[in-house]
Amino acid sequence: MTLHPVLIAGAWRPARATGAFSAYNPALGEKLPGEYPTSDWTDCDAALDAATAAAALLRTLPPEPRALFLEAFARRIEARRDELVEMAHLETGLARKPRLADVELPRTTGQLRQGAAAARDGSWALPTIDSKLNIRSFFAPIGPVWVFGPNNFPFAFNSAAGGDFVAAVAAGNPVIAKANSSHPGTTRLLAEEAKAAVDEAGLPPATVQLIYRTSHADGERLVSDPRTGATGYTGSRSAGLKLKAAADAAGKPIYLELSAVNPVVILPGALAERRAALVDEFVASSLMGTGQFCTNPSLVLLIAGEATEQFVAGVRARFDAAEPSPLLSSAVARALAASVETLQAAGARLVTGGSAVATAGYRFCNTLLRASGAEFLRTPARLQTEAFGNAALFVVAGDAGELAAVLQQLEGSLTGGFYTDTRGSDDALYQQLEPLLRPRVGRLLNDKMPTGVAVSPAMNHGGPYPSTGHPGFTAVGIPAALRRFAMLQCFDQVRAGRLPELLRDQPPNEQVFRLVDGEWRRGPLHGA
Amino acid sequence: MTLHPVLIAGAWRPARATGAFSAYNPALGEKLPGEYPTSDWTDCDAALDAATAAAALLRTLPPEPRALFLEAFARRIEARRDELVEMAHLETGLARKPRLADVELPRTTGQLRQGAAAARDGSWALPTIDSKLNIRSFFAPIGPVWVFGPNNFPFAFNSAAGGDFVAAVAAGNPVIAKANSSHPGTTRLLAEEAKAAVDEAGLPPATVQLIYRTSHADGERLVSDPRTGATGYTGSRSAGLKLKAAADAAGKPIYLELSAVNPVVILPGALAERRAALVDEFVASSLMGTGQFCTNPSLVLLIAGEATEQFVAGVRARFDAAEPSPLLSSAVARALAASVETLQAAGARLVTGGSAVATAGYRFCNTLLRASGAEFLRTPARLQTEAFGNAALFVVAGDAGELAAVLQQLEGSLTGGFYTDTRGSDDALYQQLEPLLRPRVGRLLNDKMPTGVAVSPAMNHGGPYPSTGHPGFTAVGIPAALRRFAMLQCFDQVRAGRLPELLRDQPPNEQVFRLVDGEWRRGPLHGA
Repeated sequence: MTLHPVLIAGAWRPARATGAFSAYNPALGEKLPGEYPTSDWTDCDAALDAATAAAALLRTLPPEPRALFLEAFARRIEARRDELVEMAHLETGLARKPRLADVELPRTTGQLRQGAAAARDGSWALPTIDSKLNIRSFFAPIGPVWVFGPNNFPFAFNSAAGGDFVAAVAAGNPVIAKANSSHPGTTRLLAEEAKAAVDEAGLPPATVQLIYRTSHADGERLVSDPRTGATGYTGSRSAGLKLKAAADAAGKPIYLELSAVNPVVILPGALAERRAALVDEFVASSLMGTGQFCTNPSLVLLIAGEATEQFVAGVRARFDAAEPSPLLSSAVARALAASVETLQAAGARLVTGGSAVATAGYRFCNTLLRASGAEFLRTPARLQTEAFGNAALFVVAGDAGELAAVLQQLEGSLTGGFYTDTRGSDDALYQQLEPLLRPRVGRLLNDKMPTGVAVSPAMNHGGPYPSTGHPGFTAVGIPAALRRFAMLQCFDQVRAGRLPELLRDQPPNEQVFRLVDGEWRRGPLHGA
Repeated sequence: MTLHPVLIAGAWRPARATGAFSAYNPALGEKLPGEYPTSDWTDCDAALDAATAAAALLRTLPPEPRALFLEAFARRIEARRDELVEMAHLETGLARKPRLADVELPRTTGQLRQGAAAARDGSWALPTIDSKLNIRSFFAPIGPVWVFGPNNFPFAFNSAAGGDFVAAVAAGNPVIAKANSSHPGTTRLLAEEAKAAVDEAGLPPATVQLIYRTSHADGERLVSDPRTGATGYTGSRSAGLKLKAAADAAGKPIYLELSAVNPVVILPGALAERRAALVDEFVASSLMGTGQFCTNPSLVLLIAGEATEQFVAGVRARFDAAEPSPLLSSAVARALAASVETLQAAGARLVTGGSAVATAGYRFCNTLLRASGAEFLRTPARLQTEAFGNAALFVVAGDAGELAAVLQQLEGSLTGGFYTDTRGSDDALYQQLEPLLRPRVGRLLNDKMPTGVAVSPAMNHGGPYPSTGHPGFTAVGIPAALRRFAMLQCFDQVRAGRLPELLRDQPPNEQVFRLVDGEWRRGPLHGA
């Protein structure tokens, strides 16, 4: 069988392959048709050279062609929707509907269109003008961006179409996509449409390139290569930290989304008020997508009592009754089993589940573990082991003081939440506990599970280490996500005709907000 | 002699000292009175504990007390101006006037007052509200900030009063200052006033703490300690990179300003038009402060020709005629001599200078080196060795093509500039060369030397590695500098009464700009 070609410098061409791999249907555990190459360094090198040239060209172009590209790409994804959904379903086991067709695909095209709007508008770049000193600055493209996509969002975080891709391109950079090995076919289809859209919009051909897989050593080499501008990575903590070490040592920005347990604190008043509804909410959020979300609520913190026992029993009954859906890959299934073992070895007890399902495909019983607050405090690091998949740990503190102590041992997470009652009986406890949780999470929720991540300007899909590499950046939310793939450029007394359009006295459009002499405003510099 | 005490948890108390050091008068090479301690880990640990408690308290306070603190501190610096100027002059050899009294001290108090205004206003935090989804976010304080100040700005970048200090405190964080060992007395006086201002404003006592020196190992430990929020460092590349490696491995933000050669390209038309003026401008900028500026123009790029030879001769004559002013320390003098040797070993030839001045104090002859473009291209990395002090390297390219090749070998720098003529004869060359230099520098100048760094919103005092650790941040310029010491915090469906003031429907003041549903605006959420 011939290997699928890679996309380098605008052409689909055979990889310089050192190996081959295939995707698997995780619902059946069966190999899917098609073989994909592991590229050697020659392919990476060629992609970097082409991207460097494309970056130089992109810097000279106005935003319109890249906005057109992002919109054309969105239209093309919609036109090929059925084939994309079918391929993604085969490769990930995620439901065709509603998940892939009705939720993730529209989200993906929505991100592309939001990116187009942000590119056209220009406000994302925070153009800043000090008129008296004639000093001007903005965020400019950073150069070739590598995107490593995760296994759990074949569209919305795909390295060739998802959030990091959109942010990097909208900011004016070429992208080299490193496909996730669990859905190479989906990535191939997306990259085919991306290439067609690049041609349609007249962008430099190497604006989008695709490599399926590299060696680990080449991965570390490419994120730290002098030609690389920055890297976006979403995936496992262990692989991510190796890339981070390599990029950090070379002074290359790398934005990572690594892992999170997403603590949810349920206070006594909320349990007393609406226990059955909380069971529903938690179970839906916990098992959605077989629990394979970065924002899955996998650590629930409770205070001991009868209502808590009833909540645990309610969740257990629902976990037992729900048919386990497939996991994304055999690797995910193995990692989940290992994490559940680690949690048990650290003192957590199994309430239900805890073993693989003995049917076809990669399935694990819906798993609930519990530990006391005292047990958690004995080995807080190990009891925060991420169990990526359909598993959750409940930590039942003896009292509010112990709950506070538990919160103070939490590592950085993407999200954290509180459920409180509507009558105010939990308010004093909230006031006491919120300051302990707030600095440990990127997004704080009230009375809501964390699995919905709106693509909205105020969204923060980021958080303190080890959930990401830097707590000041978000991977979701336009315009902020674009600024990850940008460098601050200042122009000091640069002559008027030589300034970038966004920094001229007359802005390139009516919409762009600029910080002029300390005030955000639209319109020309010397206008009314 | 007793050691000066450290400032920990609001009290001046004896250090747990493992050693002692003194400052030297660099103009005379003589030890100054007073001995300062090297602290052991116990001091760092105590400071971190106190700062952690202070950070938690600061989060609950409105911005007004920290604005009052910054203003009171500025007034106190002005009241103690003569003593501060005298001490800084003794410890650094920098001129009392105009440098210390008329330039650097007013700049320092100006930064403090700009920080107060930014804290009060709140726009720096980019408050963002998506009203339909009820998702809100802003930049919140990051926690205890370590500031390592450099040797070359005893006031304006002082760890206990300078730019990083102001940015960290204005953003709502406590600071632990690590004094620069070359001016501990100046830092002590500043910290005395800071402590008095903290008390006056009613801030938590540990909002400002001071340690004079630690072991290198403790330095690496403290930037990576779990209690640390972030670190600001300005200093040598070698020490900075060790701290960076430690902080990176722990996932702790660290902002570094490491080194820069600040290339200046002088094109033929400019030389033909105004050679004498360019000699004046360059010599003034190059020798100002004995060349000890992060933005010193230490690499000048020229194209071979008669005018270039005349320019070189003009600079040489002025270098020879100018009395070398003292360097900041014996360490700076040794490093400068070593760098000049490295440059010569790499092929640069001495035009003038190149050796220490055989008088009292730490002085080095004003030094000019030159190399051809071809020589530069043979060892571009070594010929970019930073010679911190009164030395510069001229690279004379054979033609425009060789100059372009030289530009493509430049490492990241804080600044870069072009001099062109006013009649347009250099314009075509500018258009060809600017894209090569622009992505390599944080601030691009036209017809201006880089040594003036205005504290202004559009300023960028940052740049690609190795000039700093990340090209998206600036150390100078308010409000942007504050965002380095902040984390992005999102509030998703958080109940109205629990929101931070900046994110409530009714903002805390009339000035703050917020990004509401995609538009920057002032005033209440549902206002006109």
